[in-house]
Amino acid sequence: MQISAYAAPSEKENLGPIKIQRRDLKKDDVHIQIEYCGVCHSDIHYARNEWGVTTYPVVPGHEIIGRVQSVGENVKRFKTGDLVGVGCMVDSCQDCGDCHDNLEQYCANGFTGTYGGKDKHLGGTTHGGYSTDIVVDHKFVLSVSEKLDTKAVAPLLCAGITTYSPLRQWKVKKGDKVGVIGLGGLGHMGIKLASAMGAHVVMITRSPSKAEDAKKLGAHEVLISTDEDQMQKHLSSFDFLLNTIPVKHDMNPYVGLLKRDATMVIVGAIEPLESLHGGGLVMKRRRIAGSLIGGIKETQEMLDFCAEHNIVSDVEMIKMSEINKAYDNVVHSNVKYRYVIDMKNSEM
Amino acid sequence: MQISAYAAPSEKENLGPIKIQRRDLKKDDVHIQIEYCGVCHSDIHYARNEWGVTTYPVVPGHEIIGRVQSVGENVKRFKTGDLVGVGCMVDSCQDCGDCHDNLEQYCANGFTGTYGGKDKHLGGTTHGGYSTDIVVDHKFVLSVSEKLDTKAVAPLLCAGITTYSPLRQWKVKKGDKVGVIGLGGLGHMGIKLASAMGAHVVMITRSPSKAEDAKKLGAHEVLISTDEDQMQKHLSSFDFLLNTIPVKHDMNPYVGLLKRDATMVIVGAIEPLESLHGGGLVMKRRRIAGSLIGGIKETQEMLDFCAEHNIVSDVEMIKMSEINKAYDNVVHSNVKYRYVIDMKNSEM
Repeated sequence: MQISAYAAPSEKENLGPIKIQRRDLKKDDVHIQIEYCGVCHSDIHYARNEWGVTTYPVVPGHEIIGRVQSVGENVKRFKTGDLVGVGCMVDSCQDCGDCHDNLEQYCANGFTGTYGGKDKHLGGTTHGGYSTDIVVDHKFVLSVSEKLDTKAVAPLLCAGITTYSPLRQWKVKKGDKVGVIGLGGLGHMGIKLASAMGAHVVMITRSPSKAEDAKKLGAHEVLISTDEDQMQKHLSSFDFLLNTIPVKHDMNPYVGLLKRDATMVIVGAIEPLESLHGGGLVMKRRRIAGSLIGGIKETQEMLDFCAEHNIVSDVEMIKMSEINKAYDNVVHSNVKYRYVIDMKNSEM
Repeated sequence: MQISAYAAPSEKENLGPIKIQRRDLKKDDVHIQIEYCGVCHSDIHYARNEWGVTTYPVVPGHEIIGRVQSVGENVKRFKTGDLVGVGCMVDSCQDCGDCHDNLEQYCANGFTGTYGGKDKHLGGTTHGGYSTDIVVDHKFVLSVSEKLDTKAVAPLLCAGITTYSPLRQWKVKKGDKVGVIGLGGLGHMGIKLASAMGAHVVMITRSPSKAEDAKKLGAHEVLISTDEDQMQKHLSSFDFLLNTIPVKHDMNPYVGLLKRDATMVIVGAIEPLESLHGGGLVMKRRRIAGSLIGGIKETQEMLDFCAEHNIVSDVEMIKMSEINKAYDNVVHSNVKYRYVIDMKNSEM
């Protein structure tokens, strides 16, 4: 089927309307009419080919909320009208150890990205949520509670699961002192989720101006990382650090905040980092780990957790036509904290 | 008591004979006549003030084997004539959470190093094993089996425990694919210990010339890290990596060797490392951790494990007067794999 979408049709960065093909419904598929799509920083990297791997045209968007339009004959979990979500993945091999462990994001054969992935059905690349409709294998469709503010649920599909998964993986629990480094799309979800898990949450930021906001979001304390005295006071005191900084940075001051045997997880900086001092790890047996989104089972668990704890993202709504301006604002951190495109009310 | 020792008496690197004071035996103390002392690369860093923290004169040596000369009235575990060892620590606060966890090496108040530490009894700094006698609190004295080749046990007190502890901490078990990176004093112990634990041990080195030796030491395979094809073949396949490289290096190629959720532990490079790529950690949820020697309880466990499995270090014996030449050889990796000073037969 031919549908309307927004794409960067060439090596240029500006997005604009195009027509794309979606596959006709197969027996395991769900056809979703898209209502909302969050704007992730990855969308920008990809649209602007900042990772050097983009194939044009690219239709970004992997924080998708919509309603089921129709389902294939094998699909029993969903029916027309259901509120559903699609995150960063639309397929994986389902046959490797990682997939069997419900960790499709680490699929040994590579998961199929919601956009820019290899389209197994139509050839070419997959297209994401900056579009009116999407057709997805039901195994990669999430059930979304009607209880929450639907538009603000969209960013949970990437920013939410990206922060939820490492908090669970490293068993953050009630009373743990958890630092969330960086207050952006990921960081603001990290605060909300860690706080709902019962942790004592410390927002760690270079910007004193973010202190008030951080507390509103649920942080119990704010640590200004450029203040040597404050950093010294918190030395070797954290049970866990969630590092959401999306760019190259010096990890050493943060490593020094970890207790013995404690871990800092990197979720934002998928690029070369500044020189790490081996002594910071050796002297207290500290750890640095990475984490990539989350598996489908865990994403559903996260959505259910958010419904139970009434957690959504803080969003600013835009129309599809405002996307290029929105990108610039994201790049300059001028959004609190996630743009969501109102697809229902956008001219396409 | 006044005893004979070898020290670097000034900012110069050469060691030579001096007289030092040891405290008179206190009720919790053990007076040990030193028979053998291993030569650790740290000794050189310290003697040459390469870490910028040395107070002269410095008497290095923290791989000490000797026989009990006498014990204080409270000491029941040892008696005159017992074969004993002293490693990198001679005291700690015994009162913090780390000490209570039998992890004195991470003592919140700082352990007392065997040399160059703050001497609580005599003032000034502690003096190590390049000497005829040492007086140590019994809690920091290890029991050594008479079964093993005594002189070759000395390096277990630092090189042995430094590699044993992370293998245990990260639960290396039978059948695990374990890589030991770097074949020196630490690396050769890593191979022997991981092999005795039942792991499939791969020696990872830049030097094809080390392959034969690595296999003699117990490695099942050798991976030449400068060979792109070989590295590609082993990508994402290791359960655990023990990184013994003692200097700044690029960790990225090694990180790529780890399976999902697997860990590389740094034990050698206590200095700034080259730029780490965040993606290597994020994409497979890999981990990098540090590890520092081991606690006293675990050091005893390691010595007992070595006695059970007949594991000692490969050593080259020297006299105390040959120490300066030995240092140069260590710096140029011209030793297989650890020098041990024969204190009994050295003129002091």
